[in-house]
Amino acid sequence: MSLQKPSIPKGTRDFSPLEMVKRNYIFDTIRKVFRLFGYQPIETPAMENLSTLLGKYGEEGDKLLFKILNSGDFLDTSIIRRDENGEWRMENPASRIQHPASGAEQLDYKVLLPRIAEKGLRYDLTVPFARYVVQHQNEITFPFKRYQIQPVWRADRPQKGRYREFFQCDIDVIGSDSLLNEVELIQVVDKIFTGLGVKVIVKLNNRKILSGIAEVIGEPGRLTDLTISLDKMEKTGKEPVIAELRQKGFADASIDTLVPFLGLASEIDFDVILPFLRTTLKTSPIGLAGIGEIEKISGYLQDLNLTSPVELDISLARGLNYYTGTIIEVKAADVPMGSLCGGGRYDDLTGVFGLKDVSGVGISFGADRIYDVMNELNLFPDMIEATTKVLFVNFGAAEEKYCLPLLAGLRESGIPSEIFPDFAKLKKQLDYANRKKIPFVVLAGENEMKEGRLTLKDMTTGEQMTLTWEQLKEKLMSW
Amino acid sequence: MSLQKPSIPKGTRDFSPLEMVKRNYIFDTIRKVFRLFGYQPIETPAMENLSTLLGKYGEEGDKLLFKILNSGDFLDTSIIRRDENGEWRMENPASRIQHPASGAEQLDYKVLLPRIAEKGLRYDLTVPFARYVVQHQNEITFPFKRYQIQPVWRADRPQKGRYREFFQCDIDVIGSDSLLNEVELIQVVDKIFTGLGVKVIVKLNNRKILSGIAEVIGEPGRLTDLTISLDKMEKTGKEPVIAELRQKGFADASIDTLVPFLGLASEIDFDVILPFLRTTLKTSPIGLAGIGEIEKISGYLQDLNLTSPVELDISLARGLNYYTGTIIEVKAADVPMGSLCGGGRYDDLTGVFGLKDVSGVGISFGADRIYDVMNELNLFPDMIEATTKVLFVNFGAAEEKYCLPLLAGLRESGIPSEIFPDFAKLKKQLDYANRKKIPFVVLAGENEMKEGRLTLKDMTTGEQMTLTWEQLKEKLMSW
Repeated sequence: MSLQKPSIPKGTRDFSPLEMVKRNYIFDTIRKVFRLFGYQPIETPAMENLSTLLGKYGEEGDKLLFKILNSGDFLDTSIIRRDENGEWRMENPASRIQHPASGAEQLDYKVLLPRIAEKGLRYDLTVPFARYVVQHQNEITFPFKRYQIQPVWRADRPQKGRYREFFQCDIDVIGSDSLLNEVELIQVVDKIFTGLGVKVIVKLNNRKILSGIAEVIGEPGRLTDLTISLDKMEKTGKEPVIAELRQKGFADASIDTLVPFLGLASEIDFDVILPFLRTTLKTSPIGLAGIGEIEKISGYLQDLNLTSPVELDISLARGLNYYTGTIIEVKAADVPMGSLCGGGRYDDLTGVFGLKDVSGVGISFGADRIYDVMNELNLFPDMIEATTKVLFVNFGAAEEKYCLPLLAGLRESGIPSEIFPDFAKLKKQLDYANRKKIPFVVLAGENEMKEGRLTLKDMTTGEQMTLTWEQLKEKLMSW
Repeated sequence: MSLQKPSIPKGTRDFSPLEMVKRNYIFDTIRKVFRLFGYQPIETPAMENLSTLLGKYGEEGDKLLFKILNSGDFLDTSIIRRDENGEWRMENPASRIQHPASGAEQLDYKVLLPRIAEKGLRYDLTVPFARYVVQHQNEITFPFKRYQIQPVWRADRPQKGRYREFFQCDIDVIGSDSLLNEVELIQVVDKIFTGLGVKVIVKLNNRKILSGIAEVIGEPGRLTDLTISLDKMEKTGKEPVIAELRQKGFADASIDTLVPFLGLASEIDFDVILPFLRTTLKTSPIGLAGIGEIEKISGYLQDLNLTSPVELDISLARGLNYYTGTIIEVKAADVPMGSLCGGGRYDDLTGVFGLKDVSGVGISFGADRIYDVMNELNLFPDMIEATTKVLFVNFGAAEEKYCLPLLAGLRESGIPSEIFPDFAKLKKQLDYANRKKIPFVVLAGENEMKEGRLTLKDMTTGEQMTLTWEQLKEKLMSW
């Protein structure tokens, strides 16, 4: 075997112990809050049938799916064969295309693809969840509150903060129309980010309000065009949005009616926005329905003393083709960074797999973005890095034998502890403790063994003390 | 979009909430013990470069790797082109093979494969770990004690208990020759299975003892042949093993010398086996070295009061080409099932990636097998199924508003709790609690609101009691 310089595929990452400890701190916090609210875990396979995934993420999404080559002779059933005249043949002329560079004719990979790959890697957690709900509908207790924390894979061009393998942490409630679910999602968001010490702003909107605005400005058929422009308000301000709409052919009258709404985008007080919307959308039943939903949610939130501010942002549109009611987006308050978390209500997630008219609402936490924010703001507690609490120095065979039962005792009390496995220079062993950020070292040499005591060294202060076994255990457990 | 009957690729699994809770119970126990012994977590990407994986698992293993199709036009740089005469050409004649069924010539997939796939899914955790150690050697603190709990993928033929996606839980210590590491692995095994309530037997052997036996029977060059036969002792007994060796051409004299060793396979007392081996292997330095290692390990174990019996089994050979010293295998005591856990010492894991002469020792826990054993023996605690502790019945809008702050208070105290999100019939709501195995239900209707009290229903006994808010909290926290 020839020597290989080791590397990993671009866009993927190894996680070192320190990174893992920080990541687990995030995952553990998220998981704990999900459980506190009664969400139950599921997991789905990394590989799904391509028929489950294709067509669910748009044409661009189809391209970004990682496809898995069929096992064995994947060309066995394919379309390249030598005919009776000894010539190589493609099954049909459509399978030939021109090579973009040389101009030579070659086999079209799009024709070959479905013959050689039937499975793909999960692109998100939502489509596999919809597939799961339909496939297991008879075993599921509805309303079904599930959480799912798993990696997903996308063949995106890798860049800073964008990876080809990353984790999503999703919760969804499926089979319930109640707005209590929306309230609960906001509570979950607040509890998680408060727990992590990340200050966030929760932004709400409702697809029905956006539909109402499209109606009252006289452009009910152009909701998507309208919201794509509205979505830029936060970045560009009012004028460029108006210019863009004009360019898209929105009538002057429509734009004039829209202008007062644009003023709202910087207004965050529900008590100001809602009465305004009630008046301006009074001719739109769907718009009024959306206002009613937001009012009900904000009414519940008033009693709950959340830490994070909740704002109504009528320019918020994310994934509009997908959401049918509430839209939620969470942004870091102290650092410019895309959204940390987003979601909303959808009315027909499972329809494509054969289960109609089941409403759901859900939200997805981006662990990588949260990690980046916490790293940037230095929000990880120092203590989590000390994965081992105490290292026993190795002074040789007799001491090893003396220390092993003591170590077993510490572990029995739940104290992560280890002995340096080799008899090495003291300096090397203390270096090991320092590099692993182990806060305490125990020295049990000849003298200590004779006296039945142990020397404990505090690696932060350098202080040493001689303790009995009971004193040592007590000291370590109280740390 | 056409309607699809949802399914998942064969050999893969969805995990329901109940299965997840049980699986997490196993993973949490394993992870906790790993941490208690000072092992630190790492993770590696699901996808590795095929150059990292190929050739590491034998020819059969190469076939069982899941390969990922290159993104975009994967045929762009491939070998099928139309030439200047308009004929389709393969790059070279070796790329043509006969179709096994029709006899027609077709493109050899093995020639096309490296042109269209450069990545594969992780096949185990060991090779990615070796790659990790070499790639990050300058950041790592040696001896490096790492744990890794991640799924692996193999395109094996699916059958009962064998899946195409399954989890491995590995620990390894790399960069230390000390036998303390072996002792510690056995302690880890004992603590994990004791924690899970699974009775196991730990079997030990040493590659050096096997080499010694091959030497003293006069067949030093046929170690692999010898051990492949020896490995069958447990299943078949002595006679078939002797017959097989005879068939393989082992001399009568060799077999005669071997027979007394075969008698040892059913003998489990170290104090009987070791003196016998010391005598019979006295002319083999490597054999004596192996005995010395086992003696040292068993000497340490004597002081540690392990729950699980540790046996020396000289027929144990697993993965011989790989291990160079200690070999460990763990079997369930109460149920016939393959090994639950196995490992050993290897002296050159990282050599192929360019880091020579680094010794390591490690062990891998098979979570799926452990799950199957625990399910069969009914060893999962009932309580873990109750993921939510209390459900508030939904009596309508006013009651919802009354209950939400109470729920927030319970969650603040760490009690997983939920409210049924819809105003539905009481029976439906209680059914939901029963199906989700929620042990308590709170009824807070008009009367309760008026009196400032809450009715708590114990779903196991059916008992109901009226409590103040403080009493309720206390009752739930003490459960």
